[in-house]
Order: sequence, then structure tokens, then C-alpha cells
Amino acid sequence: MPIYNAPLKDMEFILNDVFKADEFWKNNQNLAHIDRATASAILEEMAKFAKHVILDLNRPADESGGAQFNNGSVTTPAGFKEAFKQFADGGWVGLGASEEWGGQNMPKMLTVLADEMIWSTNPSFMLYPLLTVGAGMALNDRASQQQKQTYLPKMYSGEWSGTMCLTEPHSGTDLGIIKTKAEPNADGSYQISGTKIFITSGEHDLCENIIHLVLAKTPNAPAGSRGISLFIVPKYLVNDDGSLGERNAVAAGSIEHKMGIKGSATCVMNFDAATGYMVGNENEGLAAMFVMMNYERLSMGIQGIGASEYAYQNAAQYATDRLQGRASTGAHSPEKPADSILVHADVRRMLLNVRANNEASRAFAVYVGQQLDITKFSTDAEAVEKANHRVALLTPIAKAYLTDTALQATLDAQMVFGGHGYIREWGMEQCIRDLRIAQIYEGTNGIQALDLIGRKTIKCNAGYMGEYLAEIRESVASLDDALTIKAKTLAICQQVEDLTQFIVEQAKTQADFPSAVAVDYLHAVGLLSFVYMFARISQAAQSKSEAFYQNKIMLGEYYVAKVLPDLAARAARIQSGASVMMQFQHDYFTAQA
Amino acid sequence: MPIYNAPLKDMEFILNDVFKADEFWKNNQNLAHIDRATASAILEEMAKFAKHVILDLNRPADESGGAQFNNGSVTTPAGFKEAFKQFADGGWVGLGASEEWGGQNMPKMLTVLADEMIWSTNPSFMLYPLLTVGAGMALNDRASQQQKQTYLPKMYSGEWSGTMCLTEPHSGTDLGIIKTKAEPNADGSYQISGTKIFITSGEHDLCENIIHLVLAKTPNAPAGSRGISLFIVPKYLVNDDGSLGERNAVAAGSIEHKMGIKGSATCVMNFDAATGYMVGNENEGLAAMFVMMNYERLSMGIQGIGASEYAYQNAAQYATDRLQGRASTGAHSPEKPADSILVHADVRRMLLNVRANNEASRAFAVYVGQQLDITKFSTDAEAVEKANHRVALLTPIAKAYLTDTALQATLDAQMVFGGHGYIREWGMEQCIRDLRIAQIYEGTNGIQALDLIGRKTIKCNAGYMGEYLAEIRESVASLDDALTIKAKTLAICQQVEDLTQFIVEQAKTQADFPSAVAVDYLHAVGLLSFVYMFARISQAAQSKSEAFYQNKIMLGEYYVAKVLPDLAARAARIQSGASVMMQFQHDYFTAQA
Repeated sequence: MPIYNAPLKDMEFILNDVFKADEFWKNNQNLAHIDRATASAILEEMAKFAKHVILDLNRPADESGGAQFNNGSVTTPAGFKEAFKQFADGGWVGLGASEEWGGQNMPKMLTVLADEMIWSTNPSFMLYPLLTVGAGMALNDRASQQQKQTYLPKMYSGEWSGTMCLTEPHSGTDLGIIKTKAEPNADGSYQISGTKIFITSGEHDLCENIIHLVLAKTPNAPAGSRGISLFIVPKYLVNDDGSLGERNAVAAGSIEHKMGIKGSATCVMNFDAATGYMVGNENEGLAAMFVMMNYERLSMGIQGIGASEYAYQNAAQYATDRLQGRASTGAHSPEKPADSILVHADVRRMLLNVRANNEASRAFAVYVGQQLDITKFSTDAEAVEKANHRVALLTPIAKAYLTDTALQATLDAQMVFGGHGYIREWGMEQCIRDLRIAQIYEGTNGIQALDLIGRKTIKCNAGYMGEYLAEIRESVASLDDALTIKAKTLAICQQVEDLTQFIVEQAKTQADFPSAVAVDYLHAVGLLSFVYMFARISQAAQSKSEAFYQNKIMLGEYYVAKVLPDLAARAARIQSGASVMMQFQHDYFTAQA
Repeated sequence: MPIYNAPLKDMEFILNDVFKADEFWKNNQNLAHIDRATASAILEEMAKFAKHVILDLNRPADESGGAQFNNGSVTTPAGFKEAFKQFADGGWVGLGASEEWGGQNMPKMLTVLADEMIWSTNPSFMLYPLLTVGAGMALNDRASQQQKQTYLPKMYSGEWSGTMCLTEPHSGTDLGIIKTKAEPNADGSYQISGTKIFITSGEHDLCENIIHLVLAKTPNAPAGSRGISLFIVPKYLVNDDGSLGERNAVAAGSIEHKMGIKGSATCVMNFDAATGYMVGNENEGLAAMFVMMNYERLSMGIQGIGASEYAYQNAAQYATDRLQGRASTGAHSPEKPADSILVHADVRRMLLNVRANNEASRAFAVYVGQQLDITKFSTDAEAVEKANHRVALLTPIAKAYLTDTALQATLDAQMVFGGHGYIREWGMEQCIRDLRIAQIYEGTNGIQALDLIGRKTIKCNAGYMGEYLAEIRESVASLDDALTIKAKTLAICQQVEDLTQFIVEQAKTQADFPSAVAVDYLHAVGLLSFVYMFARISQAAQSKSEAFYQNKIMLGEYYVAKVLPDLAARAARIQSGASVMMQFQHDYFTAQA
């Protein structure tokens, strides 16, 4: 049976030693409700819930075939209903939500750590509250006061859940071509008609009502993405007194059979002149939805960390227990029939790849979380503006780079098990299947890379990147010169700055250039970000002699020696541009040889 | 429904234009039974079988849960029995086997292409004949004439099948610690007792008998791998007249539930004083088994090509059909609601990664096949010796590099589908799950890397590599100087030569060094090999103006620009050595933070 123990000491190290959360909270009047002791208590409680409640539901949910669809209804896997009630009753759905609507208003740099534990132990379970929180954010940002009063308290209490209905069979990345229609009724509501696919938690048995946020086009709306509006479409209409009214004309037509996250119901949703209520202004639906999308995108990165941490813990334990072969330097445990496979450098290579990924990714998520907290809680307008730039720049990294590296990490961890990693009972193969979707949904990682290189870099003439590089350079100045990571980080800053300038220049004359090099650029910025995180970690550890801290510095050295070299490959690919891709004719790709 | 069309034109190009098979066959008296027309006919027949018989069985075998175990018996998925009979009746099991035992004695450079088609369309099906062929090779090499007469004709006719029983619960990579015992009987046979796991085709309903090749230890055998013998243990004992006798004391205890290749029965086999017959000499079992293992290892590489080709064909078709967004350079199909996603450079990047992998991998498999053919059919002792060195050096590349790159290729292909790639019905996720085992079984890819860097490089003081580099340099000398791949290939030769020398030097004083850099070295040699294949392909195409040939050269340019840069990262990792891994204490890996 797979194991999991929340890495609380590592989490507190990142939160308190690296990012000085307590100081940050004390210096911010809007964060007076949180302190170090409260944060620790929250993490400890979630650690128990993850380990003792939802971990045990994870393998059976997959083995049993996951969520089951029957005549319009969805039954979640055994135990999910009870666990979700416990989760909701514990106030976890509204952990980061406004106190006005029943939330706890906890800072993001803390909630990312709590979320990681759920992602580690039961990603299918996590998706049920996740979409509710995302939908809540969009409503909080754009809905009328009355709409907020009607929906948000019930959503944050876990009585109702939320969805985001964007994708249609012919329309995924390109939302400008959606066909779902919204016809106005006399009373100000709309009739929503169309089919949405890939709707996470579109139907399930955990909550008494489901609040769908639906993108649709009003009559005479402009073509393309400028003509999309956002609507609330509740599964059950809500009476004026807040009680549930009649069933709305929205229903699940089927659920998808997927590679993983089988416990999560991924639904085809049919809207048949369902009653809907516009959120915000007409034709501004996409912007409203992006409030939610950005939240989800950071969450996908945390899904990556969760999977990678879970994979690491299990692989490290297996490697310790598995006796096979002898150390190259002579028997390590001559009294045993063979040595633990931990003696083999190649096994350490895999484990250290995973561990380095976990520690850098976690630091990065807390770092981005802190930037989000500045945008939300700070009263310093200049700081808010800078943090907004940082969040804009780094959200694609958080989503795509953290899931790309996590997939590789889980594959490395599976390989530590040899043949046993391929057998279902060890849990590693499910971990990989469940994680793979994180690279695909909420905007594929390729789309994230286009967002980074286009809107976030070329469009602002690399301004956001310039601010980020300035911060990194200033930050590492206080590092001990004896730490190799100091010079390395500064060198990487220069290299990424040069690459960025090269891209901005090339894009001026070659329209295909950004798309051709986007993924490589995203990885270059990801590598810069992770080496920066190890620089921050080393900074927090440099004056402490205990093994716990010295190991942090050594892991940074491992990262620089064994992972960072990928930057040279990324840079060479960026230099080689677009022509080697674009020179092929369209029919080349499918011509039968 | 997933599609597949055997890439016959590409295959014939590699066989005839690049490696001049016809000339090779004509100049070799032992290959007089094969010519170009016969080879084409064989490939065309297999293409039909793959497309019209086993492709349709592939998805249902997975969806239905695969092979089913019931009270010691295994039922293969629907249609497998009829398809296997058709396969056996067609003479396919013995395609490469000696005519003396009913085979067709076809050269390996041809059979790798036929095998690729089966791996593309139904990898679970392929595993049933594959193990028979491998077991047949071990018997052909080491068994007595009487043993050969008894078993081989029935195995090559497909009436009986074969297995290889190596792994035990506590003993995988480290076969020196196996516990299965062989006690001598008075009649010269042995009683075999023990438990073997992960036995592919250990039990099934396709054949009337199953011939297990089992590694076991005789009484007083030396400790470790020098004390292992090989035994034939038939499921049903064979009477002197060749008819089936009584059931032997060997039975499947269960089958594994796996990530993929669910149609293949992976069995726990219990030997309870089963009657066995020693093959070859006592204590030489491991060497006998390695005859088979090397054969299987090349097959795993072909499994990679098969999956990658299948993934490419489906992704390219999807990309052509899927309309989403507009080209960066302006609408490509203004009459349609959106352009085919083929207009996007990032989509082309993924497709070209896969296609470049297919064409280089396929060329490499044929190249290694030709080297194997020289070792088997040539009468020139010097040529045989050189080919033996080449096969020794490149078998780990064929097994590990071709499966590492294939997994990445199938992941790229899945990503082309966006969310649809994660849905089971499109077949892409099954392709990945089925392929993943190829990196793990028959010696994990990490073990292959250790074999390459240890036995195949350091042990011979890089002699095999020196011969390989000399061949590459000589071969590219005739390339047109205008082709960028010429200078690039020569530069890479120098780089890999330098890395190899560096490794040989470091290994003299650092016992952990080879294990620490083995996987990176394997990838470096893999990249060298693939650029060499593109050089050979460009050589065959350089004088021809048709698009088919010019596209081959352009794909080589893509490879050099976008894939080969990984070599810089591999080299940097090799330079950074072992200390960053070995400096951590053992308990670091599992210490609860």
C-alpha cells in the first residue's frame, strides 16, 4: 500500500525560513488574522486528513473504475461522499475565500501547501472542491452583490459545488468559435442552449446543487472571443429565500473514460434552454473566466508537486528496502544477501531528480503564492503593480513547467521500482496516469508557453522579465560567495536575458518564431526560476550547520550540476528558430509513404 | 478508432536505398534465399495482417481488462486465439528461424520491419510469439540435438510457445541471488522448485504446450551468478514419440494487473518439484539466457518504434483534421471557421519530434539488424568479429535509447490531441501505457546504460566505440559538403570520442563514476547514432529531387537543429561526475522531514 507523510518540516522551512511568512503577515494589516502558529496548526490538520482519510480512498477509486454514470446521475467512488462532508465541515473549501462569504481568508502562500497534500494523496478528490473555489473566485470578482449572496456562502460551505463550462466538441483552445447560445428572457434571465464537454464535476453526488459557470454567445454578439458572455446556470434553480427550486434544463449526457483521475467525473453537459443569469457585462465573459483560469493554472502546478512528492516518498522507501547488487565501492551491507539499491549512483540520480524537483517546485509555488497575496492584501500600490507583473509572468511557469518536470519526476520514481513500478498495486503507475492530465487541461502546456512568450514577454517588450531578473540579481547578492549557486544564478540571469532579447528581436520580423521556440523558452525561464529558488533556499540555510540545512545546499548543488545543463539545449533550440519546422508542406504530415 | 497503415515506402527506402539490402543479400552465399521482391512481399503481407487482423483487437483487449486468470488458467482477449492461429499458419513465428527446424531463415534486417508492424498495432499480441522466438534462439544455441528436435519444430510452428523464467520476488536485476532449486533425479532430469514472477506468457490458451526456460541452482552450485543453470520445464511432459504426456508440476499462481499490455499474461509461476531438463552445461545458464536476452533487447527497441509510428500516424491525422485558431502569418484556410492546427509551429514541433524519432529509430534497427545478419550469415571471419563488436556496443542503445525516445515521442503525440489525447477511445493513452514497460523489462534502461558504459566501453578501453566512430567518419566522407549534417556528424563524433576518453579515465580512480553518468552517456551515444542514421539517409537521398527524398534531408536538418542540442546537456552532466550524488548519507533519502 502506498505511503504518504506530509513533508511538514520542509514546508515550514520554505514558508518561514525562506520566505519569512510570519514577518510578511505581521507587516501587513490585512493579514492580521494569520500567524505562524495558526499556519502550523492548519498544515498539521490537513496532513492528518490527507494521510488518514483520502489517501486510503485513492487506489480503490481507480481500481473500481472511478466515477460511475447511470442515466444522467454520477456516483462518486466509495468513501468520497463522507470524506467530502468531513472536508467541507472542516472549512477547507473556503480556506482561502473571503470571510464575508464564510471563508477563512487564508493567504495563498499557505493554502498552496495545504492543497499540495490533497494533490499528493487523492487528485481525483481534489478536483471536486477545486472547481468550486475557482468558480467562487470568478463570481467574487464579477458577480452582482445579490448573486454573491445567493451562491457564495453555499459554495464555500460545500453544500453546493461549481464548474467551469468552456470547451465544446469543436472548440477547445480556440474559444472564439463556441456555439452555445444565450437567448434573453423577458425577466432579464437567459435561455442557455448548447453542449459542453470535459466538464470536471459537471454532475456528482457530493453536493445538493451544482453551479455551472457557462460561456455562451448572446444574439448579435461580435464574432470571436470578443463576443462571449458568462452565465450562472444552477442545476437546481434557487428560490428567493435561498431554498432549492425546480430542476434546470441542464444534465450530464455521459462521462469520459480517461487515462487517469478516474474518480473525478468529467462530463458532457447538455444545456437545453436552461435558465441562466449573466455575470458581469455582456461580451466580457472571457475576462471573467480568466480570473478563475489563473487560479486553476497555479493549482495544476501544485498538482505536479503533489504527485512528485508522493512518488518520491514511495520510491525512496522502496529503494531503501530493496536489496539488489553491491556498491561499486565494495559491499555496503556485507551481512545481507545484497545492498540496498540506494548504493547505486544511477538510483540516486533518479531519486535526487525527483527530490530536487519537489523542493524547487514547492518553493516556487509558495513564492508565486506570496506574490498573489501581495496583489490581494497589500495596501502599497507600487508593490501590487509589481506583484501583478510577476504573477502574469510566472503563472505559465507555475502551470506548465511544474507539470512538465513533475511528469518526468514521477517517471523517474516509477523506474526506481523496476518491474514493480509497472504493477498497479504499488500505486506508481496510477500516480503517473493521474498526473498526465495536468499538462493538458486548463490550457495545454504548449498554450501556456505561447502565453509566456507572447502576452507576457514580447507584448511588454520583456518588461516583466526585466523586473524579475532585477529581483533575482538583487536577491542573490547577499549569498555567500563560496556557494557555487551564487555565480551560477547570475550567469543564468544573463543567459536568459540574452535569449529574451533575441526572441523579442526575432519576433519583429518572423511571425512563426514565437510559436516555434515557445516551449523551449518556457523551460529556460523555468530553469532560471528553479535555480533562483535553490539560491533562496541556500540563503536561508547557509548559516546553519545541521544536516537538514546542509542537505538543502547540497541538493542545490545537485540541481546545478545535473538538471540545469538542460538550459544549454533549450538555448540552442531557440537559436535555431522556426524555418526547420515551417519548410514542410501541409500534406507532408499525413502523406502515405 | 485509431488508424494504422504500415509505412512501406519508408521501410523499403531504409532497406534498399540506405542499407542496400539487395546487394548485401546477393553478395552473401548464405542469404541466397532472399531477394528484394521476396522481402517486399513479406512486408506487404505483414502490413495486411497488422492492419486488418490485430489492430482491431488492440483496443478491446485493453478495454475488457486484458488477459483473465481463473483457477490456474489464463484466457487471452477476444480474437487473440484466432489471430494467433492465422499468424502461426502463415509461418510468422519462425520467420527468422533456421530452416532445419521449420523456420524461414529470413534476415534480421527484414524481420525487424515486420516486427515493427505488430508492435505498432498490438503490442500485447506480439509478446506471445516473441518469447517463443527468444526461447527458440537459446535452445538453438545451447540445447542438445535431441532437445532441439523435440521442441523447436513445435515452437516455430506455433503449436507450442516459450517463456523465460528469470525473475523471483527478491531477485530481479541481481540474478545471482535466485533461490529456485534444481535437484538431480536418477534419470538425468531435475526436480525444479521455486517461484518465478513477471513471466510473460507463462500461461495462456493459444498453444497446446508451453516450454519454460528456467534459471535455477543445482545443489552445491557456486554462489552468485556463476552458479546458475538453465532448464527446460515443459507445461506438459513430452513423450518419446513427440506426443504430449502428463501435466508437469508447474502452474500459474496469478497474473499481474499492470499499467498496460493488459492483453499479455504476466504470470507468477510456481514450480513444485517440476521435471526439468538441463540445457547446455551446469552453471552456464546465465550465458545461455543472454543469447535470448540480447534478441529480446533489440525487440524492445522495435516496440518503441512501433508505438512511436502508431502515435505519429494518429496525431498527424488529428492535427490535419482539427481546426483551431489561425496561423501566425495570416489565415491559411479563410473559408473555414479556423485553420488546421498544422499551421502552428508548436504543433509541428511535436509531430516532427515523433517523425524524426521514427525514421532514425527505424534506420537504426535495420542497421543493427544488418550487423546481426553479418554475425550469423557472413563467411568473412574479420567482418563477423567487427559486427559482433558493433552488436555488443549497440544492443543497449537499441533497447534503451529507442524506448526512451519513443516514450517521449508518444507523449508528444498525445499532446497534439489536447484533452482528447487523455480520453481512452482515441487510443493514445493506451499506446503510452503499453509502451512504458519497454523501458523497464528485459533489463531496465538504467541497467542497459551500465552495460554500455561498463562491459561495452570501459572494459574494452573504448575499443568498440573506436571502431564505430571510424565507420561513421568513413561513411560520411562521401556526403555532399553542402549538407549541414556532414560537418555536424563529424563534430559529434569528436565530442563523443572525447567524452568516452574522459569516462575511461575517470573510471580508473572513481568506482561510482560510471553508474553516475551511465544514462547520460547512453543518450550521448544514442544521439550520435541517430545523427549518423540521418547522415546515411541524407546520403541515400542527396542525388534525388523528388519531395519524398528532399523531405528526408529536411527531417535530418530538423533533427540536428532541434533534437541534437540535448547532447550539450548530456556532456555537461557527464563532466559533473558522481560526487553530487554520493555525498548524501543513506538515511537522507527517507528521513521524515
